[in-house]
Amino acid sequence: MKTAYTNALILTMLQDYSPFIGTLVVENEVILGVYEGTALPITVDQKIDMSNKALLPGFINTHGHTSMSLLRGYADDLPLQEWLEEKMWPLEGKYRREQIIAGTSLSIAEMIRSGTTCFLDMYDYMDTVAELVEETGLRASLCRGCIGFGDDSLRSRKLKEATDFAKNWNGAAGGRITTMMSPHAPYTCTPEYISQFIEKAQDLRLPIHTHMSETAREVAQNVEAYGKRPVAHLDSLGFFDIPSLVAHAVHLTDDEIALLGAKNVKVSHNPGSNLKLGSGVAPISKMIDAGIRPSLGTDSSASNNNLDLLEEIQLAALIHKGVTQDPQAVPAKIALQMGTIYGAEALFLDQDTGTIQNGKKADFITIDLTGTHMQPTHDIVSHIVYSASRNDVVDVYVDGKALMVNRELTTIDEEKVSYEANRSFQELAQR
Amino acid sequence: MKTAYTNALILTMLQDYSPFIGTLVVENEVILGVYEGTALPITVDQKIDMSNKALLPGFINTHGHTSMSLLRGYADDLPLQEWLEEKMWPLEGKYRREQIIAGTSLSIAEMIRSGTTCFLDMYDYMDTVAELVEETGLRASLCRGCIGFGDDSLRSRKLKEATDFAKNWNGAAGGRITTMMSPHAPYTCTPEYISQFIEKAQDLRLPIHTHMSETAREVAQNVEAYGKRPVAHLDSLGFFDIPSLVAHAVHLTDDEIALLGAKNVKVSHNPGSNLKLGSGVAPISKMIDAGIRPSLGTDSSASNNNLDLLEEIQLAALIHKGVTQDPQAVPAKIALQMGTIYGAEALFLDQDTGTIQNGKKADFITIDLTGTHMQPTHDIVSHIVYSASRNDVVDVYVDGKALMVNRELTTIDEEKVSYEANRSFQELAQR
Repeated sequence: MKTAYTNALILTMLQDYSPFIGTLVVENEVILGVYEGTALPITVDQKIDMSNKALLPGFINTHGHTSMSLLRGYADDLPLQEWLEEKMWPLEGKYRREQIIAGTSLSIAEMIRSGTTCFLDMYDYMDTVAELVEETGLRASLCRGCIGFGDDSLRSRKLKEATDFAKNWNGAAGGRITTMMSPHAPYTCTPEYISQFIEKAQDLRLPIHTHMSETAREVAQNVEAYGKRPVAHLDSLGFFDIPSLVAHAVHLTDDEIALLGAKNVKVSHNPGSNLKLGSGVAPISKMIDAGIRPSLGTDSSASNNNLDLLEEIQLAALIHKGVTQDPQAVPAKIALQMGTIYGAEALFLDQDTGTIQNGKKADFITIDLTGTHMQPTHDIVSHIVYSASRNDVVDVYVDGKALMVNRELTTIDEEKVSYEANRSFQELAQR
Repeated sequence: MKTAYTNALILTMLQDYSPFIGTLVVENEVILGVYEGTALPITVDQKIDMSNKALLPGFINTHGHTSMSLLRGYADDLPLQEWLEEKMWPLEGKYRREQIIAGTSLSIAEMIRSGTTCFLDMYDYMDTVAELVEETGLRASLCRGCIGFGDDSLRSRKLKEATDFAKNWNGAAGGRITTMMSPHAPYTCTPEYISQFIEKAQDLRLPIHTHMSETAREVAQNVEAYGKRPVAHLDSLGFFDIPSLVAHAVHLTDDEIALLGAKNVKVSHNPGSNLKLGSGVAPISKMIDAGIRPSLGTDSSASNNNLDLLEEIQLAALIHKGVTQDPQAVPAKIALQMGTIYGAEALFLDQDTGTIQNGKKADFITIDLTGTHMQPTHDIVSHIVYSASRNDVVDVYVDGKALMVNRELTTIDEEKVSYEANRSFQELAQR
């Protein structure tokens, strides 16, 4: 089955991309051809007109906890530790499988609607999350995030759970699901526990993911506990000697940035969450100068409070200009790459997704170009990054399959999902 | 004619507001009653059901240049002076009445769609802008912004134009249009020229508006030229001794903040534009501590690049937390007041608009509460500020008249406006 998506304004997201009017041809789940102009040099089974729309790779969300959407707006504007220890953890501790289904389904609906085609999820009950990914059609990199509190047997049980999950689900759903190993953070896991994850990741030839240097307090704690800042600490454990992705990376010295660049460590920049929690502003311009290609993540809806990756692209393009007082920091073209191809690289999925290119999986979205806020039609990259909003996303495809067509979701019932989210939270609150 | 808007989740925006389910009754253009609960104690001619919607005052945009929407995305990510002097000014210099109509119409359509009911416009050809405001139904505070370059006769001509405009249009369109006097900025107007505006504003009993302390460079220039920073400079001219509104106020010392607070100077905070142009981050938390109630503005679409005031509310709630590393800076409740009642105060229109309150003009909007990104329904203020997007705005009323119903504009043809914006820019570029 060959389908041609015609008359689209195509943004490939390849290096030095420039938008052009053209046709994308997809055969089953793979991109077969990308042609400039309106003529179509091959025969297809079906044509879909994409006039007045931009067509680009779907957004890639490289850090989050989808089940936490149930806690969206439950507690805001509080000091971080109070928010986490008094509000989040007590409710999360009462989560059962039902809350995972409700929270993750809500997150998946929201992500598809805002143009995300691939996301990372680090949480608990990951088999359930994986089943939902399988059903709803998104691409995902999944990991059982393990907090190392409790006794040895609890820690061992969690590590085994994480390892079994990573083994069982890597490559599932026709390759749409891949997995990572994930100790939660240096401040919640002992060095020995982190080393065990590194070892398992090496055995399974899987990448490793953790939270790192999100707050100044956590960096100070690390120095107090281990005599080293988190980067040196993780480096000494060999964390960066295997494919690794760190989330946040807000509090970094120039030497740390250089080390992350030299070791080709992937970074998930979470501007919305870092701002909202008062964590700070990550030194993204310096990272880019050091050769790092930072990706973007929303973190959870409890600290964002949505899963709109376009908003993160916009924040990334805006805040670094303001904070460094340099209007050329993080140009629009790079911000859009951060939300697409850099995201694919961060999840070690750039062979499969992140650009519009022959042989890659057909993961793409379209964006309406007709809104008043998108006129005059000078520079479409600028308009997407600085003017558009999530509602301009019209169609979403993953592996060539439509997950949203003309703003209608095809694999998930939003009304039911919204109802279940409210019901499931009520049930949790009364437990 | 009495209309009841029933079953809405009402946010009055009064001090210490809490949302409640209730009914708003409007008689012609005025709010006649606000009732909690579903019972309606008075007889009305018409009922409109607002179930599953929040109902709140419309957003108020306190600084902008609507005609510049034609230059949206025409030049981005450039150093400020290059952007202004090589890109903006040459094209703006070629503007004729046609471009004003096209740019302002585009801006008005975009503002209504994103829930703005009242805006400030500082530009040229203000009679034309006022006519468009009259036709399309928004509330506006308008001023002929005057750059003081050129010879004395040009300056005098502009001052007369500004004065005539302010006199002729104040109170027009059934009171929807009010006016101010506006010297462009201390770095584009001599002290003598600014003094002439202050004098005229006093004569006409009108407020005065200007750009102030937007960039570090401009502050340094002011010190070099006049031996004073902009705040002391304007203060010495008597600028703050009459009702005054300053836009930007990014680069302020603690003493300057105290002085602005003591003199009850109104501030238009423009976070999107200040970030995008690399100007910096205004010290909003300190201003709030000093008793200033900062309002929000988009600035023009050439430096934002849209006129979405909800986005500015969201930026205001996020960036100050991140930059000051204080998660309690600019809480959601205050951010929403900045976009509504503080805006009305900044335009000296708080007797008429900015809250849902008996006797005020019926300027209100509704926001859809059913999106997946608005679940679970914990805290509606949090959801509007941190989760919603402009497309959640469903209805817009000014003076009791519907300007948007179920996301359809009633006073402006968006397709025509978009077409004209493109045509008019092309004509400009070829001139």
